Amino acid sequence: MLTTTDPATGTTQETDIRVTTAAETAAIAESAQRAFESLRGNSREWRAGLLEAMADGLEAHRAELVSVSNAETGLGEGRLNGELGRSQFQLRLFAEALREGSYLEATIDHAGDTPLGHGPDLRRMLFPIGPVAVFGSSNFPFAFSVAGGDTASALAGGNTVVLKAHSSHLLTSRLSFEVLHAAAAAFGAPEGTIGIIFGTDAGRVLVADPRIVAVGFTGSLGAGQALLEIINARDAPIPFFGELSSLNPLIITPAAAAERTAAIAEGLFGSFTLGSGQFCTKPGVAFLPIGPTGDAILDDLSARTAAAGGMVLLNSRISSSLTSILGRITGEGGARVVAAGSDGGPGILAAPTLLEIDADEFTAATAEEAFGPVMVVVRFDTLDQIFRAVDLMPASLTATVHHGSNEPELVRQISDRLAPTVGRLVFNGFPTGVRVSWAQHHGGNWPSTNSQHTSVGVSAIRRFLRPIAFQDAPDVVLPEELRESCTSIPRRIDGSLVLPA
Amino acid sequence: MLTTTDPATGTTQETDIRVTTAAETAAIAESAQRAFESLRGNSREWRAGLLEAMADGLEAHRAELVSVSNAETGLGEGRLNGELGRSQFQLRLFAEALREGSYLEATIDHAGDTPLGHGPDLRRMLFPIGPVAVFGSSNFPFAFSVAGGDTASALAGGNTVVLKAHSSHLLTSRLSFEVLHAAAAAFGAPEGTIGIIFGTDAGRVLVADPRIVAVGFTGSLGAGQALLEIINARDAPIPFFGELSSLNPLIITPAAAAERTAAIAEGLFGSFTLGSGQFCTKPGVAFLPIGPTGDAILDDLSARTAAAGGMVLLNSRISSSLTSILGRITGEGGARVVAAGSDGGPGILAAPTLLEIDADEFTAATAEEAFGPVMVVVRFDTLDQIFRAVDLMPASLTATVHHGSNEPELVRQISDRLAPTVGRLVFNGFPTGVRVSWAQHHGGNWPSTNSQHTSVGVSAIRRFLRPIAFQDAPDVVLPEELRESCTSIPRRIDGSLVLPA
Repeated sequence: MLTTTDPATGTTQETDIRVTTAAETAAIAESAQRAFESLRGNSREWRAGLLEAMADGLEAHRAELVSVSNAETGLGEGRLNGELGRSQFQLRLFAEALREGSYLEATIDHAGDTPLGHGPDLRRMLFPIGPVAVFGSSNFPFAFSVAGGDTASALAGGNTVVLKAHSSHLLTSRLSFEVLHAAAAAFGAPEGTIGIIFGTDAGRVLVADPRIVAVGFTGSLGAGQALLEIINARDAPIPFFGELSSLNPLIITPAAAAERTAAIAEGLFGSFTLGSGQFCTKPGVAFLPIGPTGDAILDDLSARTAAAGGMVLLNSRISSSLTSILGRITGEGGARVVAAGSDGGPGILAAPTLLEIDADEFTAATAEEAFGPVMVVVRFDTLDQIFRAVDLMPASLTATVHHGSNEPELVRQISDRLAPTVGRLVFNGFPTGVRVSWAQHHGGNWPSTNSQHTSVGVSAIRRFLRPIAFQDAPDVVLPEELRESCTSIPRRIDGSLVLPA
Repeated sequence: MLTTTDPATGTTQETDIRVTTAAETAAIAESAQRAFESLRGNSREWRAGLLEAMADGLEAHRAELVSVSNAETGLGEGRLNGELGRSQFQLRLFAEALREGSYLEATIDHAGDTPLGHGPDLRRMLFPIGPVAVFGSSNFPFAFSVAGGDTASALAGGNTVVLKAHSSHLLTSRLSFEVLHAAAAAFGAPEGTIGIIFGTDAGRVLVADPRIVAVGFTGSLGAGQALLEIINARDAPIPFFGELSSLNPLIITPAAAAERTAAIAEGLFGSFTLGSGQFCTKPGVAFLPIGPTGDAILDDLSARTAAAGGMVLLNSRISSSLTSILGRITGEGGARVVAAGSDGGPGILAAPTLLEIDADEFTAATAEEAFGPVMVVVRFDTLDQIFRAVDLMPASLTATVHHGSNEPELVRQISDRLAPTVGRLVFNGFPTGVRVSWAQHHGGNWPSTNSQHTSVGVSAIRRFLRPIAFQDAPDVVLPEELRESCTSIPRRIDGSLVLPA
């Protein structure tokens, strides 16, 4: 039987969950395939209702979900309550997007003469793709796990989902699954609409299964690469939407440091220690100007860091990895520890740690993601020093600029330089906390993600859809949204966008 | 020096083109990278003008381009004139899409209270990605080659392009490049906006080059897989948009066969022999009912096939491959030759060939794509026989149904069964001839393509774009399209689609 550990106490207990066998995994994929076939005929309105039923189910089991999750993650009830709210919000936002209908990209070109001769009637829209494998992440037991955004966006698109439970919160995963599964069953969804598997080997079997048509993954670069290798060895390669690693550089201009010294220090400390620093959007590297205002921010950060107690990590693998990485960043990476909090006490704890390095000493070895409450402060004099260091970093999900009230040219320069490789640029704020909305993009160049799509926000649904075009089709074969009579959703007709009547 | 062959005569001559060295390829990629940086500041209107200047350049050199191409491809002046028109049309259609602006997916969520607390201001749109490698295909020396759709869509997105010339039409590739390059230079585009390389090894070097951020490819499954292997070995994997192989099943219902016997035979013969059958959308397998009307269509097809002369193939590799494949389809594949045209005469010729097999004898070995004027007719009694055979085929770009005037239920059943794996479903028409328009989709499941995007039509631009979100950004860093003041393009604002003022 698999075990689960309470990281706040370090206590490990055996669960009644065992590794899913290869035969069981195949049967679950088969069931997902059958459910996908039977879901085809259902309307967008039906799917919106399904998502809302799942959100309602999560709310009805809030206390139990938060309690079980807290005992496996040590993230605290406040955070977990908020995160469970986010899981529900995501489901409801996709329900809204389904009803609105733009995501279908419904497009009609009527038959007619063109400069290239007669053109047939063409009608294109996006369709679901099939059973999607979703790998839960360790650090968001609700919002990026079984009840998370990949599940919501894949189901919203009309697909079915097979979840790979994260080993770090097995009981949370199972309970989340049971709640969603019961809600789906009560709503009338077929068995196989969502399924779950346990164990690393089962995950490998799942990704290789010919019925699986796409993979959503949030986790480490190494684990992501291992899955990519399995995908590359398949007879038919499938899309892998991975969110893998991110340093999230944050730049504080001299004017910003002077204007908002205390606020920046307070906000930055909160951001790099939020969730014990186990956020994919944690600012791992902060550029701070050399000089008195920069010193003042560093002093403030140092005092907060030194005064902080040990922070609970999600599991012992993250803990030992963090120790190794800290060794490398302070060793070959050349950074100095300027402040460290306590790491005493029971449980799997990390001491919050603030490191410092001069911009000219920054190397690729300093630019390693440390998953935990650790941040490297890079002291700079000139913009060129910042840009040189940024060029040594892998691409990130986010970059952040704290700027003064009157330096438009400087802000533009920094933005133009950072934008090309990241997914989101934050101004006078902090990258942790990712708004779930229509305009969000949670992505960035490799290795932060490997995709041109997002895993947060409405457009995440695009990952699990594909176009089909119908040429001169009789109405009877067309989905309602492509029939001449439909006026309920935005469509592009003969090149012009037409809003609902 | 590399050689070029006139397939209509079989005459081979030395060109003055040599294989691009690895150092030259790297320099061309570097130049593309520099040009990309310098293009960033240019407007959509500027890029629309660039595309139109390129289209004008192609028109100004029409006679020369068609003449050079005809001597390398044997496709004939009529076809090549039409195809050159299509290349221009594609460029102009993307110019139109640039001015319209929807393709940017500009989305704004204003700051405000949300069920999850305060939400920051978020503004997302799509941005260009960098230098794109485009591999020209053999069978469309204009529309899917140097002056083709991948080039047009990559440039439209604001990217730069490095072309890999197809070995089968080197002089056409170079001339097309010179025309486009001169038009771009005259328009004021920086050197490196488009570049070209020659030789298979140079293509491999290009795909491995760290400056290349995506690959557009139309060609064989084997060549595509070889490029995918190079991509998988890169430090940073990049998207590969490949269009690889397609059988394009076509079904003729008994009612259709009875209602339009002669028209179907005539159209089908034209479709499978168009361009000597060297179309990725050629119907490779046609299902024809057992019985007198099916026999009548087969007789008509046979007579047309037997009466046809040898058809010029693009090169000797296609010719020898076609001979091998025909051997396998008639050997292990079990199909019988029912009619074959002549293959006498000078040049690289194929005899148009019609094969037949009973549906119950159809196996995976019968389902091999034969790139040339070859079609397998499958005789059936029941729908189940068709579906069993289709299940043995790899996924295709298209599927086609010829149905009678009053069999809605049958049409729906066939459509529902074929739609899930193809990119385009054609009704009472033929799959060859792909309309270039807003609603087109030229794609399909592996191995027809490996992507959820199209390579024909306006949405092809999405392959070469990625989102960036700006959080609480000052106007000075925002592109014009994301500023509050912009009302010239469709945008989604706080969840609602807003059309231009």
